Amino acid sequence: MSDNDWLASTPAPPYTAVIFTSRRTEADDEGYASMATTMDALARQQPGFLGVESVRDNDRIGITVSYWESAEHAQAWKQATTHLGAQRLGREKWYSAYQTRIAVVERAYDTDSSPLA
Amino acid sequence: MSDNDWLASTPAPPYTAVIFTSRRTEADDEGYASMATTMDALARQQPGFLGVESVRDNDRIGITVSYWESAEHAQAWKQATTHLGAQRLGREKWYSAYQTRIAVVERAYDTDSSPLA
Repeated sequence: MSDNDWLASTPAPPYTAVIFTSRRTEADDEGYASMATTMDALARQQPGFLGVESVRDNDRIGITVSYWESAEHAQAWKQATTHLGAQRLGREKWYSAYQTRIAVVERAYDTDSSPLA
Repeated sequence: MSDNDWLASTPAPPYTAVIFTSRRTEADDEGYASMATTMDALARQQPGFLGVESVRDNDRIGITVSYWESAEHAQAWKQATTHLGAQRLGREKWYSAYQTRIAVVERAYDTDSSPLA
Protein backbone atom coordinates (compact mmCIF):
# COMPACT_ATOMS: atom_id res chain seq x y z
CA MET A 1 0.00 0.00 0.00
CA SER A 2 1.20 3.46 -0.84
CA ASP A 3 1.16 6.12 1.86
CA ASN A 4 -1.99 7.69 0.46
CA ASP A 5 -4.17 4.61 -0.06
CA TRP A 6 -6.59 5.99 2.52
CA LEU A 7 -7.36 8.85 0.10
CA ALA A 8 -9.50 8.14 -2.97
CA SER A 9 -7.88 9.36 -6.14
CA THR A 10 -10.92 10.81 -7.87
CA PRO A 11 -11.12 12.58 -11.25
CA ALA A 12 -12.21 16.16 -11.79
CA PRO A 13 -15.83 16.76 -10.71
CA PRO A 14 -18.66 16.14 -11.25
CA TYR A 15 -19.02 12.64 -9.84
CA THR A 16 -21.24 10.99 -7.22
CA ALA A 17 -20.44 10.46 -3.54
CA VAL A 18 -22.32 8.05 -1.27
CA ILE A 19 -21.81 9.12 2.35
CA PHE A 20 -22.60 6.28 4.76
CA THR A 21 -22.47 7.16 8.48
CA SER A 22 -23.08 4.32 10.91
CA ARG A 23 -22.65 2.98 14.42
CA ARG A 24 -21.62 -0.63 14.77
CA THR A 25 -23.33 -2.74 17.39
CA GLU A 26 -21.17 -4.82 19.73
CA ALA A 27 -22.17 -7.94 17.80
CA ASP A 28 -20.17 -10.17 15.51
CA ASP A 29 -16.92 -8.33 14.84
CA GLU A 30 -15.55 -11.28 12.92
CA GLY A 31 -18.50 -11.71 10.57
CA TYR A 32 -18.68 -7.99 9.99
CA ALA A 33 -14.99 -7.66 9.15
CA SER A 34 -15.18 -10.57 6.75
CA MET A 35 -18.22 -9.11 4.98
CA ALA A 36 -16.64 -5.63 4.84
CA THR A 37 -13.59 -7.08 3.09
CA THR A 38 -15.77 -8.95 0.61
CA MET A 39 -17.98 -5.93 -0.14
CA ASP A 40 -14.95 -3.69 -0.60
CA ALA A 41 -13.51 -6.10 -3.16
CA LEU A 42 -16.83 -6.41 -5.01
CA ALA A 43 -17.44 -2.65 -5.06
CA ARG A 44 -14.05 -2.12 -6.67
CA GLN A 45 -15.12 -4.40 -9.54
CA GLN A 46 -18.40 -2.56 -10.14
CA PRO A 47 -18.79 -0.40 -13.25
CA GLY A 48 -18.31 3.26 -12.47
CA PHE A 49 -16.43 2.72 -9.17
CA LEU A 50 -13.95 5.57 -8.56
CA GLY A 51 -12.71 5.02 -5.03
CA VAL A 52 -13.61 4.73 -1.35
CA GLU A 53 -12.55 6.31 1.93
CA SER A 54 -13.51 4.64 5.20
CA VAL A 55 -12.84 5.36 8.86
CA ARG A 56 -14.21 3.89 12.11
CA ASP A 57 -13.29 5.16 15.56
CA ASN A 58 -13.09 3.56 18.99
CA ASP A 59 -16.72 4.48 19.71
CA ARG A 60 -17.63 2.28 16.71
CA ILE A 61 -18.83 5.30 14.72
CA GLY A 62 -17.88 5.01 11.06
CA ILE A 63 -18.00 7.15 7.94
CA THR A 64 -17.50 5.50 4.56
CA VAL A 65 -17.61 7.60 1.40
CA SER A 66 -17.66 5.75 -1.91
CA TYR A 67 -17.22 7.61 -5.17
CA TRP A 68 -18.92 6.74 -8.47
CA GLU A 69 -19.02 8.07 -12.00
CA SER A 70 -22.75 8.71 -11.71
CA ALA A 71 -25.77 8.26 -9.46
CA GLU A 72 -26.83 5.39 -11.74
CA HIS A 73 -23.57 3.53 -11.06
CA ALA A 74 -24.00 4.05 -7.31
CA GLN A 75 -27.58 2.83 -7.51
CA ALA A 76 -26.56 -0.31 -9.44
CA TRP A 77 -24.15 -1.23 -6.63
CA LYS A 78 -26.86 -0.65 -4.02
CA GLN A 79 -29.11 -3.10 -5.92
CA ALA A 80 -26.43 -5.74 -6.58
CA THR A 81 -27.62 -9.10 -5.25
CA THR A 82 -24.58 -9.81 -3.08
CA HIS A 83 -24.74 -6.30 -1.67
CA LEU A 84 -28.45 -6.57 -0.82
CA GLY A 85 -27.66 -9.56 1.40
CA ALA A 86 -24.98 -7.57 3.20
CA GLN A 87 -27.35 -4.62 3.67
CA ARG A 88 -29.95 -6.90 5.23
CA LEU A 89 -27.42 -8.26 7.75
CA GLY A 90 -26.31 -4.70 8.41
CA ARG A 91 -29.84 -3.67 9.36
CA GLU A 92 -30.46 -6.85 11.35
CA LYS A 93 -27.33 -7.08 13.47
CA TRP A 94 -24.32 -4.94 12.55
CA TYR A 95 -25.60 -1.36 12.73
CA SER A 96 -27.56 0.20 15.59
CA ALA A 97 -28.24 3.21 13.32
CA TYR A 98 -27.04 4.65 10.04
CA GLN A 99 -27.68 7.34 7.48
CA THR A 100 -26.92 7.26 3.76
CA ARG A 101 -26.65 10.38 1.64
CA ILE A 102 -26.20 10.48 -2.13
CA ALA A 103 -24.50 13.63 -3.36
CA VAL A 104 -22.99 15.15 -6.47
CA VAL A 105 -19.44 16.42 -5.94
CA GLU A 106 -19.10 19.76 -7.68
CA ARG A 107 -15.73 20.98 -6.47
CA ALA A 108 -12.63 19.43 -4.90
CA TYR A 109 -9.20 20.52 -3.78
CA ASP A 110 -6.35 18.86 -1.93
CA THR A 111 -3.11 19.50 -0.09
CA ASP A 112 -1.45 20.87 -3.20
CA SER A 113 -4.34 23.07 -4.38
CA SER A 114 -4.82 26.66 -3.48
CA PRO A 115 -6.53 26.73 -0.08
CA LEU A 116 -8.89 29.39 -1.37
CA ALA A 117 -9.75 27.64 -4.64
CA MET B 1 -25.49 13.90 24.70
CA SER B 2 -28.21 11.79 23.20
CA ASP B 3 -27.35 8.40 21.77
CA ASN B 4 -27.42 9.71 18.20
CA ASP B 5 -25.38 12.90 18.55
CA TRP B 6 -22.78 11.40 16.20
CA LEU B 7 -25.39 11.56 13.40
CA ALA B 8 -26.25 14.92 11.86
CA SER B 9 -29.97 15.56 11.83
CA THR B 10 -30.31 17.10 8.39
CA PRO B 11 -33.46 18.31 6.61
CA ALA B 12 -34.85 16.91 3.36
CA PRO B 13 -32.40 17.37 0.44
CA PRO B 14 -31.08 19.32 -1.32
CA TYR B 15 -28.34 20.74 0.92
CA THR B 16 -24.56 20.97 0.72
CA ALA B 17 -22.02 18.53 2.17
CA VAL B 18 -18.34 19.35 2.66
CA ILE B 19 -16.38 16.09 2.84
CA PHE B 20 -12.96 16.60 4.45
CA THR B 21 -10.66 13.56 4.49
CA SER B 22 -7.31 13.97 6.23
CA ARG B 23 -4.38 12.32 7.92
CA ARG B 24 -3.11 13.89 11.11
CA THR B 25 0.63 14.21 11.59
CA GLU B 26 2.12 13.02 14.88
CA ALA B 27 2.54 16.66 15.92
CA ASP B 28 0.78 18.70 18.57
CA ASP B 29 -2.20 16.59 19.67
CA GLU B 30 -3.07 19.10 22.37
CA GLY B 31 -3.07 22.17 20.13
CA TYR B 32 -5.02 20.31 17.48
CA ALA B 33 -7.69 19.08 19.89
CA SER B 34 -8.13 22.55 21.31
CA MET B 35 -8.48 24.12 17.85
CA ALA B 36 -10.88 21.38 16.72
CA THR B 37 -13.16 22.12 19.69
CA THR B 38 -13.06 25.86 18.95
CA MET B 39 -13.76 25.40 15.25
CA ASP B 40 -16.63 23.03 15.93
CA ALA B 41 -18.24 25.59 18.24
CA LEU B 42 -17.76 28.42 15.72
CA ALA B 43 -19.08 26.38 12.79
CA ARG B 44 -22.27 25.65 14.74
CA GLN B 45 -22.85 29.42 15.05
CA GLN B 46 -22.39 30.08 11.31
CA PRO B 47 -25.40 30.96 9.16
CA GLY B 48 -26.63 27.94 7.21
CA PHE B 49 -24.95 25.31 9.43
CA LEU B 50 -27.02 22.09 9.50
CA GLY B 51 -24.78 19.58 11.25
CA VAL B 52 -21.48 17.75 11.28
CA GLU B 53 -20.28 14.14 11.49
CA SER B 54 -16.66 13.43 12.31
CA VAL B 55 -14.59 10.28 12.85
CA ARG B 56 -10.86 9.69 13.24
CA ASP B 57 -9.33 6.23 13.57
CA ASN B 58 -6.21 4.86 15.24
CA ASP B 59 -4.18 5.37 12.07
CA ARG B 60 -4.97 9.08 12.42
CA ILE B 61 -7.12 9.05 9.28
CA GLY B 62 -10.19 11.24 9.65
CA ILE B 63 -13.36 12.01 7.73
CA THR B 64 -15.42 15.04 8.71
CA VAL B 65 -18.59 15.86 6.81
CA SER B 66 -20.23 19.21 7.54
CA TYR B 67 -23.68 20.01 6.18
CA TRP B 68 -24.86 23.43 5.05
CA GLU B 69 -28.01 24.99 3.63
CA SER B 70 -26.12 25.99 0.48
CA ALA B 71 -22.69 26.08 -1.15
CA GLU B 72 -22.59 29.80 -0.38
CA HIS B 73 -22.99 29.11 3.34
CA ALA B 74 -20.21 26.51 3.21
CA GLN B 75 -17.98 28.92 1.33
CA ALA B 76 -18.60 31.70 3.87
CA TRP B 77 -17.39 29.42 6.67
CA LYS B 78 -14.31 28.50 4.65
CA GLN B 79 -13.50 32.21 4.32
CA ALA B 80 -14.24 33.15 7.94
CA THR B 81 -11.20 34.87 9.45
CA THR B 82 -10.87 32.58 12.45
CA HIS B 83 -11.25 29.52 10.24
CA LEU B 84 -8.58 30.72 7.79
CA GLY B 85 -6.05 30.79 10.64
CA ALA B 86 -6.97 27.22 11.58
CA GLN B 87 -6.66 26.10 7.95
CA ARG B 88 -3.17 27.60 7.73
CA LEU B 89 -2.04 25.70 10.85
CA GLY B 90 -3.65 22.57 9.42
CA ARG B 91 -1.56 22.84 6.27
CA GLU B 92 1.61 23.76 8.16
CA LYS B 93 1.66 21.17 10.90
CA TRP B 94 -1.50 19.17 11.63
CA TYR B 95 -2.23 17.37 8.35
CA SER B 96 0.21 15.37 6.26
CA ALA B 97 -2.39 15.29 3.45
CA TYR B 98 -6.04 16.05 2.95
CA GLN B 99 -8.77 16.34 0.36
CA THR B 100 -11.88 18.50 0.46
CA ARG B 101 -14.93 17.85 -1.69
CA ILE B 102 -18.01 20.07 -1.92
CA ALA B 103 -21.14 18.18 -2.90
CA VAL B 104 -24.89 18.66 -3.21
CA VAL B 105 -26.87 16.00 -1.36
CA GLU B 106 -29.77 14.93 -3.54
CA ARG B 107 -31.14 11.92 -1.68
CA ALA B 108 -30.91 10.54 1.85
CA TYR B 109 -32.29 7.65 3.83
CA ASP B 110 -31.70 6.23 7.28
CA THR B 111 -32.29 3.23 9.52
CA ASP B 112 -36.04 3.72 9.43
CA SER B 113 -36.38 4.35 5.69
CA SER B 114 -37.05 1.73 3.11
CA PRO B 115 -33.69 0.14 2.30
CA LEU B 116 -34.54 0.32 -1.40
CA ALA B 117 -35.79 3.91 -1.36
